[in-house]
Amino acid sequence: MTIPDAAANAFSTLLGDRYVTARGIRDQHRAFAGPNTKVAPDAVAFAASTQEVSEIVKICARHKVPIIPFGIGTSMESQVAATRGGLTIDLSRMDQVLEVSAEDLDCTVQAGCTREALNHHIRDMGLMFPIDPGANATLGGMASTRASGTNAVRYGTMMQNVLCLKVVLPDGRIIRTGTRARKSAAGYDLTRLFVGAEGTLGIITEVTLRLYGIPEATSAAICAFPDLESAVNTVILTIQTGIPVARMELMDELMVKGVNDHSKLGLEEKPTLVMEFHGSEEGVKEQALAVQAIAEELGGSDFTWATRPEDRSRIWKARHEAYFACLAMKPGSILMGTDAAVPISRLVDVILETRADIEEHGLLAPIIGHVGDGNFHCSLMVDPENEEEVATAEKLAERISDRAQRMGGTCTGEHGIGLGKREKLVKELGPDAIDVMRTLKMSLDPHNIMNPDKIFLN
Amino acid sequence: MTIPDAAANAFSTLLGDRYVTARGIRDQHRAFAGPNTKVAPDAVAFAASTQEVSEIVKICARHKVPIIPFGIGTSMESQVAATRGGLTIDLSRMDQVLEVSAEDLDCTVQAGCTREALNHHIRDMGLMFPIDPGANATLGGMASTRASGTNAVRYGTMMQNVLCLKVVLPDGRIIRTGTRARKSAAGYDLTRLFVGAEGTLGIITEVTLRLYGIPEATSAAICAFPDLESAVNTVILTIQTGIPVARMELMDELMVKGVNDHSKLGLEEKPTLVMEFHGSEEGVKEQALAVQAIAEELGGSDFTWATRPEDRSRIWKARHEAYFACLAMKPGSILMGTDAAVPISRLVDVILETRADIEEHGLLAPIIGHVGDGNFHCSLMVDPENEEEVATAEKLAERISDRAQRMGGTCTGEHGIGLGKREKLVKELGPDAIDVMRTLKMSLDPHNIMNPDKIFLN
Repeated sequence: MTIPDAAANAFSTLLGDRYVTARGIRDQHRAFAGPNTKVAPDAVAFAASTQEVSEIVKICARHKVPIIPFGIGTSMESQVAATRGGLTIDLSRMDQVLEVSAEDLDCTVQAGCTREALNHHIRDMGLMFPIDPGANATLGGMASTRASGTNAVRYGTMMQNVLCLKVVLPDGRIIRTGTRARKSAAGYDLTRLFVGAEGTLGIITEVTLRLYGIPEATSAAICAFPDLESAVNTVILTIQTGIPVARMELMDELMVKGVNDHSKLGLEEKPTLVMEFHGSEEGVKEQALAVQAIAEELGGSDFTWATRPEDRSRIWKARHEAYFACLAMKPGSILMGTDAAVPISRLVDVILETRADIEEHGLLAPIIGHVGDGNFHCSLMVDPENEEEVATAEKLAERISDRAQRMGGTCTGEHGIGLGKREKLVKELGPDAIDVMRTLKMSLDPHNIMNPDKIFLN
Repeated sequence: MTIPDAAANAFSTLLGDRYVTARGIRDQHRAFAGPNTKVAPDAVAFAASTQEVSEIVKICARHKVPIIPFGIGTSMESQVAATRGGLTIDLSRMDQVLEVSAEDLDCTVQAGCTREALNHHIRDMGLMFPIDPGANATLGGMASTRASGTNAVRYGTMMQNVLCLKVVLPDGRIIRTGTRARKSAAGYDLTRLFVGAEGTLGIITEVTLRLYGIPEATSAAICAFPDLESAVNTVILTIQTGIPVARMELMDELMVKGVNDHSKLGLEEKPTLVMEFHGSEEGVKEQALAVQAIAEELGGSDFTWATRPEDRSRIWKARHEAYFACLAMKPGSILMGTDAAVPISRLVDVILETRADIEEHGLLAPIIGHVGDGNFHCSLMVDPENEEEVATAEKLAERISDRAQRMGGTCTGEHGIGLGKREKLVKELGPDAIDVMRTLKMSLDPHNIMNPDKIFLN
């Protein structure tokens, strides 16, 4: 127990029954922290306002209680694991859309608002927030992990789409990191410093986001290819040609089989691209024809079109359920995901080498990817009881990171560092760059209470 | 003289005749540092490589010599003023394009390479780097000040277009801030921390940039309006409609008169929008028609087209020479520029209030702006000998900042803080946010040798 009585009393006084130490609630806030280890915080605080988060943090600072900011728990790299116990601050009740400016194409939400809730709120205004990591994550969590997903090839990631933040610092002070102006040269880019900091520098409590008009026309298309190479080459040429495709997702043969079985899609079981085009009626047609010409050249099948909204949602739902499709392919298994991203010219190399590596080691590992960004995921399906298989998968994941880094890429396109990629981060940028990160961290959080152990090895 | 003999000897040994203390060279590296004050460094080092910059910085660190990184000296807020003397490190000889990957649409250049040199280098590959602040700045300088300019409405600023950097830290260590992957969630966003830090955290020596294919079609159009309001409303509606206009520049009546006189353009002397459209032949036509419809609705004249490259360059050259056009309007005057940016819905308000304010105080101050971003500049033309006029202009500039901040905007869209906007920055984000910036700065540069006095008041 890392929470001294004096702190616990202060939390109780401040929060009443929103300060919880019950086992059940703490267990809901557990997270993976290493093979066969899931750790829970000592207590959970359900915060109701920025001011309250500030008060909670001040108490934690006084008593050096570790703090774990928590949205809805969908992060992929153990970012919410309470490795040293302490207090999880659950922001899911701070879920309000505070302001929408349709004229300025922006909005401000509380950190606990989810992306689906936001999109529901703004749909009737003809607006959308396109960043879509699959899970219905909170927008504070998405900012904290610099999330992206299927639409990033066109709309960017949270890096480009957060205008500014409200943040509670490790000493409890509250700051705004910027303004609602579309661009600014006003001092250090604090917004971008907190975006992707995984809660190690402070707690994001409000997020101001760019919005987009719902495009006049949207269409989706599916195209099967004789082999992975021709599918990936279609992506490369599309991007190089500058076609502003909105989504461009690859599924390898195995992944197509998985989603077929799980979502009854009836797709041809070949390497497949799923694409979406946004724009004017004319623009969408033009984009799609351009991609179709490239695909054809490379041996792709005819496009299967999904212009009706319900067909499109069926496809994207299947894509989003890939996680469950993978689990269903090997009952009892867990999914160890990889997240490498490379410069687009190396995408064929990295995927083909990885595919060969997977086959050589006899693992079940469908490949899926936001390939328009050069980002792809292998879902290594392993039996957690089978130590040898786990070890084989870990080594494979290691090699995928190494391979991407050797090709000028990164070990993580969108999942973040958390606990699992800390050594890989050092490999990627070198010890001096990590030392700079650690120096920044310690300058703002000298007692290391903000989400300790994430990003940095001790 | 802030350079002790031991340091001077070390610089001479390292650099030979590229370490210069001659008055003429030092004066070329002077910059404005307050009314009637221009300060020069005690010496200038012309660096030839990252390794050499690192050695220079190590000597400075040992002897606590202030360092001013210098590209080509086009920054707008005294960012290169040697307020405490010290050593200016001139990077203009580090001007090589190190690598271009046409497949990946990226390149790596040395910090002293200018944007025009880069564009010249890549033009035959069908590529362009669109960020265009007007001046032929170095790309290291543009990264350091988070520059943008006329194309930012479509292509973003240096924030979005720098993929990663090589940086020499205040202790001389060399780091890479990221990889060539298009997106990454690998730890703190060091790239964005150094972009816009104005040389206060380290010296950028290499910049890896996104490139774009030269669009299949480009066309430019000019449209005059009966009044400022209808011109600005055309901008607002265009942006809100999501038309991907590449450039959208406003000139008020006075500015049009200025460029007419200076560049012999023969434009109608009314509030005017100058626009550029990039895309496919069809796409460009579609965009232009959409904007034309909006303009017509609001009383705009017929579009005057410039489809021939030479006509387009004539227009943009005139736009870029606005600075000289302004000086010519009032011989002997200096230009005090403002740089506010607001959420687009407030653009009419801020510009009309500012126009009225200018008229009320009898100043000559043409307005020009990257209005698609909500960013506009007033060029306050003042006689530097006329103390009353200078004071009136300073107060006006102050009110423009206040007005923009009150409307949810920023005092600087693209020029940065430098010396002149340090108080305004505190107003904009509050003392705690600035304290966070200062804490970060002091953690990396505890002796405050990297471009001291910029961004922060003492």
